Amino acid sequence: MRIVVDAMGTDAHPAPDVAGAVQAARALGDEIILVGDESQIKAELAKHKAAGLKLEVVHASEVIEMTDKPAESAKHKSNSSIHVGTQLVADGKADAFVSAGNTGGTLAVSTLYTLKRIKGVLRPAVTVVYPLGVKKVVVADIGANTDCKPEFLVQFAIMASLYAELALHVERPRVALLSNGEEAEKGNILVKETAALMLTMTAINYIGNIEPKEVIRGHADVIIADGFTGNVFIKMYEATTRFVTDVVREEIGASPITLLGGALSRPAFQRVRKRLDPFEVGGAPLLGVNGVVIIAHGRSNAFAISNAITRAKEAVESGLVEAIQAGVA
Amino acid sequence: MRIVVDAMGTDAHPAPDVAGAVQAARALGDEIILVGDESQIKAELAKHKAAGLKLEVVHASEVIEMTDKPAESAKHKSNSSIHVGTQLVADGKADAFVSAGNTGGTLAVSTLYTLKRIKGVLRPAVTVVYPLGVKKVVVADIGANTDCKPEFLVQFAIMASLYAELALHVERPRVALLSNGEEAEKGNILVKETAALMLTMTAINYIGNIEPKEVIRGHADVIIADGFTGNVFIKMYEATTRFVTDVVREEIGASPITLLGGALSRPAFQRVRKRLDPFEVGGAPLLGVNGVVIIAHGRSNAFAISNAITRAKEAVESGLVEAIQAGVA
Repeated sequence: MRIVVDAMGTDAHPAPDVAGAVQAARALGDEIILVGDESQIKAELAKHKAAGLKLEVVHASEVIEMTDKPAESAKHKSNSSIHVGTQLVADGKADAFVSAGNTGGTLAVSTLYTLKRIKGVLRPAVTVVYPLGVKKVVVADIGANTDCKPEFLVQFAIMASLYAELALHVERPRVALLSNGEEAEKGNILVKETAALMLTMTAINYIGNIEPKEVIRGHADVIIADGFTGNVFIKMYEATTRFVTDVVREEIGASPITLLGGALSRPAFQRVRKRLDPFEVGGAPLLGVNGVVIIAHGRSNAFAISNAITRAKEAVESGLVEAIQAGVA
Repeated sequence: MRIVVDAMGTDAHPAPDVAGAVQAARALGDEIILVGDESQIKAELAKHKAAGLKLEVVHASEVIEMTDKPAESAKHKSNSSIHVGTQLVADGKADAFVSAGNTGGTLAVSTLYTLKRIKGVLRPAVTVVYPLGVKKVVVADIGANTDCKPEFLVQFAIMASLYAELALHVERPRVALLSNGEEAEKGNILVKETAALMLTMTAINYIGNIEPKEVIRGHADVIIADGFTGNVFIKMYEATTRFVTDVVREEIGASPITLLGGALSRPAFQRVRKRLDPFEVGGAPLLGVNGVVIIAHGRSNAFAISNAITRAKEAVESGLVEAIQAGVA
């Protein structure tokens, strides 16, 4: 298997991206193609013991920055690492693409210029797999489509359910619509209309509406939302998690006694951090794109990038793209 | 001042409701009217040293339960504590109404049957004042209106800004629209159209879009959203806060050493709890209703109810209803 990694992806690129690629090449034994500024990548690679690993470098002269507008940069930066990388997949020269860069840019380049959409897919969705509460859940869409029609959400459900089942090996994934209450009469118009359609979809294990506290309790495996609500939802989780852990740290540091207590409790806090760590998953696919594209967080470290590469391998091996083709047909 | 308290409001009514009323009567010196099942209220009052306090009981034979459908129960249970209580305000026999009961029911009874809407208000909004991150923020709407027009959100902004300024004494409250990004081009159609209108509202200190992490960092005083997004947002905060603190507790309890550390850190955890405690505020108004109606959480304890009564007093003293009348005119 050949997996392309965007070396210019993370906020601190190319160090975490290259280090993650080296880790994954070692762990998986697969071929990794690093795409981006060749001299920067090579300088970074020189810091690692990469001899014997299947690592290749492909030059790309431009970078779509985090601050770039997706549609514009997709159009004008046709030599970006995202363009060059996804084109390798489109041309059959690689099996998957992984990037921690501008999500909107990756989406725009993939769907409009290189890989295109899977036939029949109305809108692709940005996905995340998150240790959201007691278990990992798949959430889609978290930002590609701020305004949705019910038909879009039904397709997100089909695609995300297939991903959970085939790549993450969740048996008959429970799919729920994110809402302001669990009762069938709750929801905005979009949720209510989507719910009516979902009931006709026998291929999906649809369990109804879900509200945040039930998500946290692990009552569903796949959470479906429009990209606006899904984005606010996931960002609120990230921001609140960080805030609460910061408050705990601050208050423990406020007196010598509690500081001592905190020192004794350190192993517990390490376990807390591990349980809340989004980087253990590393990334999740752009669903609906005609090829495996894994999106990682801009703040990813090498560990996260390496895990995102594993997610790419799983997605390719699971036959996700082909299953979505059949599923939306 | 005379404040009506729904004795049948909290999930554990009437004990917390009555105890909170007694506390407030003692602390504020104002007259509190407890409305609900007279014999239950009197039995509860007998447990308190309430002699000399200005406490009155008004009987109401029905209760709108948490599980009741708002519109239906508002129509059919015309002797509910919410009906009787808000009618006292509508008749000028009391100045404000406080309830921890069914929010939708209180909204329906108030707007359709007893107090009605303030003239010119398109839709009333359910508000919360929450220690959301580093400071308390006002969020509206958190559930009354799942589907909104931009004009509704602009009015929520006017009303919530007036509340923050007049009752909570925030100087020139910074008002922001909850969105999936801070940039002006971010947002769904509703947010973008609302933002365009907001820029024309010179009476509001509108600072643009805000995303969750900036809310948590205290970048705004008033957060405006449609009732669907606002509800998911606030429920995600509650669920995540509880989850993270539960995980910390669980991991500290997992070994004798960390348990000892936890015991030494107890004062820190108490400070954390206090900082995250939503009950310190107690409640927030239904904005747009023609009278002061304060909504408290169903899980409120006596402390929360007592604080909600203080919020009612502040709202009456601030002239909030009159200010909203003028503000939307």
